[in-house]
Amino acid sequence: MLRLATPEHQRFSQVASFCASFGGGEANVAVSLANFGLPTEFVTRLPQNDLGQSVLMELKRHSVGTNHIIWGGERLGIYFLETGSVSRPSKVIYDRAHSSIAEIESGMIEWEKVFKEAAWFHWTGITPAISRGASVACQEAIAIAKKKGITVSCDLNFRKNLWKWGKSASEVMPELVKDCDIILGNEEDAEKVFGIKPDDADVSRGEVKGANYEPVCKKLKKQFPQAKKIIITLRGSINADHNTWSGVLYDGEKLFEAPVYQITHIVDRVGGGDSFMGGLIYGLLTYHGDDQRVLNFAVAASCLKHTIHGDFNLVSVSEVEQLMKGDTSGRVVR
Amino acid sequence: MLRLATPEHQRFSQVASFCASFGGGEANVAVSLANFGLPTEFVTRLPQNDLGQSVLMELKRHSVGTNHIIWGGERLGIYFLETGSVSRPSKVIYDRAHSSIAEIESGMIEWEKVFKEAAWFHWTGITPAISRGASVACQEAIAIAKKKGITVSCDLNFRKNLWKWGKSASEVMPELVKDCDIILGNEEDAEKVFGIKPDDADVSRGEVKGANYEPVCKKLKKQFPQAKKIIITLRGSINADHNTWSGVLYDGEKLFEAPVYQITHIVDRVGGGDSFMGGLIYGLLTYHGDDQRVLNFAVAASCLKHTIHGDFNLVSVSEVEQLMKGDTSGRVVR
Amino acid sequence: MLRLATPEHQRFSQVASFCASFGGGEANVAVSLANFGLPTEFVTRLPQNDLGQSVLMELKRHSVGTNHIIWGGERLGIYFLETGSVSRPSKVIYDRAHSSIAEIESGMIEWEKVFKEAAWFHWTGITPAISRGASVACQEAIAIAKKKGITVSCDLNFRKNLWKWGKSASEVMPELVKDCDIILGNEEDAEKVFGIKPDDADVSRGEVKGANYEPVCKKLKKQFPQAKKIIITLRGSINADHNTWSGVLYDGEKLFEAPVYQITHIVDRVGGGDSFMGGLIYGLLTYHGDDQRVLNFAVAASCLKHTIHGDFNLVSVSEVEQLMKGDTSGRVVR
Amino acid sequence: MLRLATPEHQRFSQVASFCASFGGGEANVAVSLANFGLPTEFVTRLPQNDLGQSVLMELKRHSVGTNHIIWGGERLGIYFLETGSVSRPSKVIYDRAHSSIAEIESGMIEWEKVFKEAAWFHWTGITPAISRGASVACQEAIAIAKKKGITVSCDLNFRKNLWKWGKSASEVMPELVKDCDIILGNEEDAEKVFGIKPDDADVSRGEVKGANYEPVCKKLKKQFPQAKKIIITLRGSINADHNTWSGVLYDGEKLFEAPVYQITHIVDRVGGGDSFMGGLIYGLLTYHGDDQRVLNFAVAASCLKHTIHGDFNLVSVSEVEQLMKGDTSGRVVR
Amino acid sequence: MLRLATPEHQRFSQVASFCASFGGGEANVAVSLANFGLPTEFVTRLPQNDLGQSVLMELKRHSVGTNHIIWGGERLGIYFLETGSVSRPSKVIYDRAHSSIAEIESGMIEWEKVFKEAAWFHWTGITPAISRGASVACQEAIAIAKKKGITVSCDLNFRKNLWKWGKSASEVMPELVKDCDIILGNEEDAEKVFGIKPDDADVSRGEVKGANYEPVCKKLKKQFPQAKKIIITLRGSINADHNTWSGVLYDGEKLFEAPVYQITHIVDRVGGGDSFMGGLIYGLLTYHGDDQRVLNFAVAASCLKHTIHGDFNLVSVSEVEQLMKGDTSGRVVR
Amino acid sequence: MLRLATPEHQRFSQVASFCASFGGGEANVAVSLANFGLPTEFVTRLPQNDLGQSVLMELKRHSVGTNHIIWGGERLGIYFLETGSVSRPSKVIYDRAHSSIAEIESGMIEWEKVFKEAAWFHWTGITPAISRGASVACQEAIAIAKKKGITVSCDLNFRKNLWKWGKSASEVMPELVKDCDIILGNEEDAEKVFGIKPDDADVSRGEVKGANYEPVCKKLKKQFPQAKKIIITLRGSINADHNTWSGVLYDGEKLFEAPVYQITHIVDRVGGGDSFMGGLIYGLLTYHGDDQRVLNFAVAASCLKHTIHGDFNLVSVSEVEQLMKGDTSGRVVR
Repeated sequence: MLRLATPEHQRFSQVASFCASFGGGEANVAVSLANFGLPTEFVTRLPQNDLGQSVLMELKRHSVGTNHIIWGGERLGIYFLETGSVSRPSKVIYDRAHSSIAEIESGMIEWEKVFKEAAWFHWTGITPAISRGASVACQEAIAIAKKKGITVSCDLNFRKNLWKWGKSASEVMPELVKDCDIILGNEEDAEKVFGIKPDDADVSRGEVKGANYEPVCKKLKKQFPQAKKIIITLRGSINADHNTWSGVLYDGEKLFEAPVYQITHIVDRVGGGDSFMGGLIYGLLTYHGDDQRVLNFAVAASCLKHTIHGDFNLVSVSEVEQLMKGDTSGRVVR
Repeated sequence: MLRLATPEHQRFSQVASFCASFGGGEANVAVSLANFGLPTEFVTRLPQNDLGQSVLMELKRHSVGTNHIIWGGERLGIYFLETGSVSRPSKVIYDRAHSSIAEIESGMIEWEKVFKEAAWFHWTGITPAISRGASVACQEAIAIAKKKGITVSCDLNFRKNLWKWGKSASEVMPELVKDCDIILGNEEDAEKVFGIKPDDADVSRGEVKGANYEPVCKKLKKQFPQAKKIIITLRGSINADHNTWSGVLYDGEKLFEAPVYQITHIVDRVGGGDSFMGGLIYGLLTYHGDDQRVLNFAVAASCLKHTIHGDFNLVSVSEVEQLMKGDTSGRVVR
Repeated sequence: MLRLATPEHQRFSQVASFCASFGGGEANVAVSLANFGLPTEFVTRLPQNDLGQSVLMELKRHSVGTNHIIWGGERLGIYFLETGSVSRPSKVIYDRAHSSIAEIESGMIEWEKVFKEAAWFHWTGITPAISRGASVACQEAIAIAKKKGITVSCDLNFRKNLWKWGKSASEVMPELVKDCDIILGNEEDAEKVFGIKPDDADVSRGEVKGANYEPVCKKLKKQFPQAKKIIITLRGSINADHNTWSGVLYDGEKLFEAPVYQITHIVDRVGGGDSFMGGLIYGLLTYHGDDQRVLNFAVAASCLKHTIHGDFNLVSVSEVEQLMKGDTSGRVVR
Repeated sequence: MLRLATPEHQRFSQVASFCASFGGGEANVAVSLANFGLPTEFVTRLPQNDLGQSVLMELKRHSVGTNHIIWGGERLGIYFLETGSVSRPSKVIYDRAHSSIAEIESGMIEWEKVFKEAAWFHWTGITPAISRGASVACQEAIAIAKKKGITVSCDLNFRKNLWKWGKSASEVMPELVKDCDIILGNEEDAEKVFGIKPDDADVSRGEVKGANYEPVCKKLKKQFPQAKKIIITLRGSINADHNTWSGVLYDGEKLFEAPVYQITHIVDRVGGGDSFMGGLIYGLLTYHGDDQRVLNFAVAASCLKHTIHGDFNLVSVSEVEQLMKGDTSGRVVR
Repeated sequence: MLRLATPEHQRFSQVASFCASFGGGEANVAVSLANFGLPTEFVTRLPQNDLGQSVLMELKRHSVGTNHIIWGGERLGIYFLETGSVSRPSKVIYDRAHSSIAEIESGMIEWEKVFKEAAWFHWTGITPAISRGASVACQEAIAIAKKKGITVSCDLNFRKNLWKWGKSASEVMPELVKDCDIILGNEEDAEKVFGIKPDDADVSRGEVKGANYEPVCKKLKKQFPQAKKIIITLRGSINADHNTWSGVLYDGEKLFEAPVYQITHIVDRVGGGDSFMGGLIYGLLTYHGDDQRVLNFAVAASCLKHTIHGDFNLVSVSEVEQLMKGDTSGRVVR
Repeated sequence: MLRLATPEHQRFSQVASFCASFGGGEANVAVSLANFGLPTEFVTRLPQNDLGQSVLMELKRHSVGTNHIIWGGERLGIYFLETGSVSRPSKVIYDRAHSSIAEIESGMIEWEKVFKEAAWFHWTGITPAISRGASVACQEAIAIAKKKGITVSCDLNFRKNLWKWGKSASEVMPELVKDCDIILGNEEDAEKVFGIKPDDADVSRGEVKGANYEPVCKKLKKQFPQAKKIIITLRGSINADHNTWSGVLYDGEKLFEAPVYQITHIVDRVGGGDSFMGGLIYGLLTYHGDDQRVLNFAVAASCLKHTIHGDFNLVSVSEVEQLMKGDTSGRVVR
C-alpha cells in the first residue's frame, strides 16, 4: 500500500508535496520480523505497474520474501495521512477500494504452496475489511494453515471506514478468529469487533490501566477458547504528540503486564500496533515460555517504532533489548 | 484530479515524495480562461473529504467558479506522473477508476441550471473515456447546451489507457462530437479516434508540418459538418526536453498556420493541449473574425505553459501578447 | 502581508530559504471566519505586482471576499519570523514601513460602500500602528461603521516596534477603542496600551490565572463603557514550545473563565490571538447569549491554531467543537 | 541586499518558499575579486538586525573586507526573482526603497578613511538610481577617489524601475561617469542612459555582433574622454535558458573582441554583468597591457557565472583560465 | 560506496545538504544486470556499521545478490560529486582510501565458492587502483575465474586520482587485462593505461568519430590477443549538459559502430560507462552472435542512464529496446 | 570536520540526503567565542580540496581567525549523525581516521608563532584520541603555551570509539592534563578517563545532582593540583528529546552550582559541551572573580545551544544574559 503523508504536521489543505512510503498492516509485521532476522514471506496481490514494482523493491530492501506475491488488478491501495499535533488528531483518508488486493478472488493464491515450509501465518482485521474477496482469501488461508498445523496469529485491527463491502466486522471476524492461536487487539478493538468492553472504557483520557483489561482478555478467551495467548496493546493518548504505551498478555491463566513507556515526542505512531505484533511473534519464537519477556520485547520494540518515520519499524533486536533493560535515556551512542 | 509528480526527473522507483497539485483537462481550460479574465464555472463531482475540499480551494484560488460542483462518491481521481528526460519518455499512471466523477450518474447535475447564464460549454474526450456514467453526463450536457444555443467545444484528447468501461472511443465519440461547434485535436487524436490520418504520420520524428494536417481537417469537417472551426495542435517531439509547438486552424475554407515555437528546455508539458484550448476559447471570444490572431494567441499561450510546473497555465494576456509579438528572447524583466 | 519564516527552528543567520505564506492580523481573522462558513470581506490596499496578486489569490482560496481591496502603493508589507525553541524566543523582524497599506490615505477606501451589507467590522491595533494614514483610515471606518449601527470589534494587539510614525499607542488608541463594542486584548496589551495592569503581572513565569484579569476587565469597562464584552486571552509561556492557553470574557457583570489548555508541542503560535478573535466573532454570531460557550469556542479554536503552520487557522467548526467537548487526546481519525 | 528567488522556475504565484541569498551589483564584484585573491573592501550601510548581520557574515565568508560598512537605517533592500524559462522571461520585483543604503546621507561614510590604502574604486549605476542620498554619496566617493588618484570604474547598469527619486539616469549619470577611468555597459545601457545606440539595435533577436558596438564605444569615448577603457558586454538572448555571451573592449584606439560563448543551459544569469566586471578588474590589475587577455578573462569568468546559483560568481582563477584555453567541454574532473 | 552529490548544480562551497545514494563501478554493472533480469552477485567488503548495512539493503532492493559480501574494515568509501553545467565541469572528490574494500587482503574472499555457479566475472580498473590489497584480490579472482572457464570482462576505467598506493596503472593493468575475454574502455582509457592513442585525440572538442578508434581496438587486440571483443565507449562533450554518446565494438575482425545519440539535457552522467557495460554483458548473453545488436543495446541502455539521477541505470529491457528502434522522441507514455 | 546529519529524526537506513555542516570540539568553542566578540584563532590542518576550503569559509563567516591553519593531508574528517528521539538514542559514526588533522606530525605547526599574541589555549580530549601525531601536536602546543604563560584549558571529552591508535585515554591524558589551568568534563568523562566516579553514577536515570560531583572535583584537583578551576557539565537524560542541563564549578575551595534547565524539546544537542566551554572561557575572561556568574553564563549559553541546529552555538551575549536573568518563557520578541 502506498502511504502519502503530509510533511511536518501540515494539514491536507496546505500540502505541496506528500512524503511517499509503503506500508500496511501485514507488510509492517513482515518487515519487523525480517529486521529481527527471521525468514519471512509477504503474500499479497500487486498491480503490474511501477508502483506495484516499487512495493516489491521496498520489501526486498528489508529482506522480506516476495516469492508468493501475485500480480494483477488495477491499482495499488493508497492511504493519505495528515499528521496531527497536540490536540489536533491525525487523519487518515483511505483510498483502498478496488485495489489489487481488494479485488482478489478465491483461489488466486496457492496457499498450499505458500505454506509449504511455513511455521507461522499472520493476518490482520484490515484484510477481511477491504472486500468480500479479501475476506474469502483470508478464510482460505486460515483454513489451510490450520490444517497444516501452522500457528495462526491475528491482529483485530478494527477500522470502521474500511468495512464497506456489505458485511460488518462483527459478522465476519468471529469466524476467522476462532481458529487463531494468538489474538492481538488494541484497547478499543475488542469492543468494536466483539462488543467486549474494558472496565474503564474512556481511552481518550490518557490513562490506560493494564489491569482493566483482564476481563477483556478473559471474555475473549471464553469466546475463542482455542487462543493460546490474548494480547492487548494499551495506548494512553495524552495528546497527539505524547502517548503512553504498554500492553498486557493473557495466557489463559495469568495476566502479564508490561512497563508503561512515556512517548513524549512522537515522530510517527502509525504502525505502532504492527510493530508490537512483530515484536510479539519474534518473542514467542525466541523466548519460549518466558511470556513476560515476550511481552516486554513487543512493547519495547513498538515503543521505538513511535520514533521512526513511516510504517516500518526499523530497529534491531539489540536496540530493543537495550530499551528492555530500562535505558530510556536516549543518550548519544558514539 | 490529484496530480502526483515525481520531483526533478526522478523515476517512480526512486521517489521519497511526490509533488502534489491539481489538474485535469477541463479544469485546466477553466483556469486558463479565468486567468485571462473570463468568468468561468467548472462543473464536476468531488468526494466529501479533505482532498475534494482542496480541489475546491485551488479552483477558487484561480478565480474559477465552483457553484455547480456537486459532492459525492468515494474518491478523488489521481494520476501519477514521472517526468522523462531526453530520450526517456514521461510516464503517466492513471488511477481514476471509481473516482467521484467516474461514478457520476445521469441526472446528478442540473444542466439546465448550469447553463442558465452560460455562453460556452467545453468538454474533452477524457470525460466520456472514464466511465459509462461520465459519458452519459457528457451527452446530457451537450444536448442541453445545444438546445440552448450555447457554443460547444471539445478537445478529442484520446487516452488509450482510459477507455476501459466497455465501449471504445470510436464508438462513443462521433455521437458526442457531432454537435460541437469547435473541435480540437492533437496530431494523433483524429487518427486514434476517427481513423483519420495525416499525410505524414510519424509524429515521433520531431518534425510536424502544418500543411500535412489540412486533409485531416477537411475529413473531420466532412464527418462533422456542423463544426465551425477545426483546430489541430502540432507537437514535434525532438526529445522529452525539446519539442516544437504549433497548430493549424481550419474554418471550413481556409487553413491558418501558426508560427512554430522551439521549446528547448521544457519545464512541464502536461496540460499543453488544455492551455491551447484555453487560449483558443479566449481568442475566439475576443478577436472576433481574426482567426489567425486567435490561433496565434492559442499557440503562444500554450507555448508558455511548457515553462510552468503543474497542469495550470499561469500566464496573463499581456504575457501571451508579448510572445505573440515575436519576442522569444526571455530577457529579464526588471 | 508576506510572511517569511525560517524553516525548522533555524536562526536567521542559518537560512538558505524562507517558508513563504501570507498573513496579518485582520486577514487571519477573516480566514478564520470564512473557514467557519461566514461570509467575509477583507479590506486592504495591495501593490500591483505579483506579490499583491498572490495575496489576493490566497484570500480567494480561503473563500474570503476581496471585493473591496484597492490597488496601489509600492510594496507589500513583510515580516520575517525566526521560530524559537524551548528557552530561545521566536523573533519577528517587521518590514512593513512604506507598504501599500501603510501609505493609505484618507478617502481611498469607500467605507460607505464597504459597509453596505455588513453587520460586523473588525480592526486591530496593528493598523493604526503602521502609519498616520492607516490610523486615519481606521478612524474613518470606525466612525462610518458606528453610524451605520454595525458591531465594531477590536484586538488591541500592541506591537512596540510598529508605533514609529510619530504618535504612541496610548495617544491614538483610546480615541479608536471608545466606539468599539467588543474589545480583545492579550495578557499584556491593556497594560502596554492603557497602563492597566493585572494583579499578577509577571507573564513570563508560565502561570496566568484568569481571575487576576478581572480587575483589568473592569478597568477597561470603566474606561470604555460602551464595550459590551471585554475579552482577554491568557497565554502562559512555559517555554517557546510549551504554552498554556485560555481566556476570560467579561460582559460588564460577570467574568467567564475558559478551560486552560496545555499546548505542549507548539507547531506555530503566530496568529494565535487572531484565531481567538475569529472564534469569538463566530461564537458571538452563533451562540447568542451563551457567553461561556462563545468563550470556550474561541479558546478551543485558537488552541488548535497552535498546531498549524502559518498565520491562518485552518480548522472547521466540527473540529473545534470536538475539542470543546474535552477530547484533547489527539487519537488518529481513520 | 537580500535576494529571494522562486525555486526551480516556479512562478511567484506558486511559491511556498523562497531561496534566500545575498547579492547586489557592487557586492557581487567584491566577491568576485576576493575569490580571485585580491584584497577587497565592500562599503555599504546595513540595518542593525539579523538580516544586516547575515549580510556581514556572508561577505566575511567570501573574504570580502567589511571594515567600512556602517550601520543604521530601517531595512535591508530586497529583490524578488522569478526565474523564467525558454520564452518566459525572468521577472524581478525590486523592494529596495527606504533601505538603509537608500537612506544614506552625505557625510555618513568617511571616504578619506575608506580610500586610505585603496587603489581602485568601483561603483554601479544602481547606486545613484536608488535615492538622492545614495546618488550624493556616490558622487562624494568618486570625487575623493579622483582626488587621491585612485582608479575609478563604473558599470552603467541601467534599471528603469529603480530611477524613481526625482531625477532620471540621463540627468545624473553623466556627471558621475565623467570622472571614471573604466566604463562598462551592457548592450542596452549606453542607449538607455546616454541615448547612444548600436548600429543593430534589436537585442531580443539573439544575435549580438561585437563589431556593431564599435560606434557605441567611440561615442562614449567622445562623451567621456577621460575613460581609458570602454567595455560592452554582449548578451544574445536566444531564449531564457540559452544565451550567447561575449564582450568588446575599446582602449580609445582599438576594439578587442572576445570569443562568443554558447551558454545553452543557464543555471542563473543574474550577476552576469557583475562577474564580468570582477573579471575585468582582476584582469586589468594582473595582465597589464594585454587587453585581449583581460577581456577574455572577464568574458570567461562571467560565462562560468551563468552556471552558478545566486548572485556571486564562485569560481577560481584557474577555473577561468581553463575555460579561456578553449575547453568548453565540461568533462568531469576526477 | 556512498555517493554524496551537491543538489541542483550547486558548488561544493554552497551546499547545505548532500543527496545521498550508493554506487560504484562494479555495483552499477550488477544493478543494470539485475534490472535486466539476470541473476547477479555483487562481491565486496563492507564495514559493519549502518552505512555498510544500507549498501546491503540498497543492493537487495535492486535484486542484486549479496551472498558473497564480506564484512570488516573501518569505513565505507565515499565520493563527493559536484554536478557541473555548460562549460563548468563536474568535480569528483574521492574519499576512498582506507575503506573496507581498500583494506581487503589476499584470501579474504573465497573465490572458489563465489564462482561455484558463476558464468561471468566482471571487474573494473577502479578496483586495482584503490590499494595493493584490492589489486591482489582482483588478480586472485581473475586467475580462479580463468581456471574455471568463466568469461571475464573488464572496464579499464582509468582514474588518475586513485592510483596512489605505489604502482601505476600501466604497471598493474596489463597483467590483469591479459586474461580478459571482454575489454571495455572509454575514449581516453586506452591511452592513459596503455599509451594507445586514437587517430584524433582531442576528446574535448565534442566530436568523437567511431572510425578513429579502429586503430585503438586493433592495437589493444594485438597487445591482448585473448580478448574476444574490444569495445570503446565514445563520449563527445559538447558541454557538461550536452554530450554525444556512442560506441564501437571490435570482434577481432570487424568494427561495429553504433548510432550516435544526442544527449542534450543530461540529468546525471556518472555511471554512464557502467551502464554501457551492463547493457553489453546483457547483450552478449542474450543476442548471441549479433554483435551489432549487442552494441546497439549497450549504447541505448547507457544513453538512457544519462537521464537518471544516481549511479544506477534504472531502466528495463523493453525501455532500452524501444529506444533501439529509433524512437528518441520522448513522447509521454500514458 | 564535516558533519553529515540525517534530517528530521530519520534513521541512517532511510536517508536520501544528509544535512551538511561543519563542526568539531575546538572549532565549536572558537565559534562561540567569536560570536561573543572575542578575537579567536582556530588552529588545524585541512586538506587542499573544496571541502577543506569550505571549512575555511565557514570559520571566516563566524569571524574565527584562520591565520594559523595549515594545508595538507588527504581527507577531511567526517562524522555521521543520526538524530534519535524519545528512547531511541542518537548515533554517531566517526569517519575521522586518516584525516588531515589525524595525520599531523610533530613540528608541522609553528606553535611559537601561533601563540605570539595569544592569552589562552584550549584543546579537547578528542584531539589526542585521533592519532599519535595529533596527540604529539597537542603535547607540543601545551608545552609551549605553558612556557609562555598562556592559560590552558581542556575539555576531557572522552570518546571511546576514537581511541584506536595504540594508547588509551588513561595512558595519554594525565600527561596532557597536568599542565592545564582549567579542566572541564561531563558527568562521565572523569570516570572514563581517570576512573574517578561520582557518588551517584547512573547518568541514564535522568537525574543528575550537582552535589554528587563535589567528590569528583576534589579528586581531580588532587590529581591535577595546578588546575585553578574544575568544571563538570551535568546532563540529565530524561530521554533523547528532553534533558536537564546544569553544571558545577570547583575553584579548589568551593563548589558553585548552576540552576538546572529543563530542555524539553531539544533541537540539536551535539556541541552542548563545547558551547559550555565557550561560555566558560568568555565568562572567565569577562566576569573576573565572579565564578557563580561565570558558571551561570556557561550553563545558560549551552542551554540555548540545544535549540540550534548544527554544532555551532549561534547566540549573542545579550541572548545568554536574558536567559541568565531567569526568563525561560520563550515569548516572541517582536
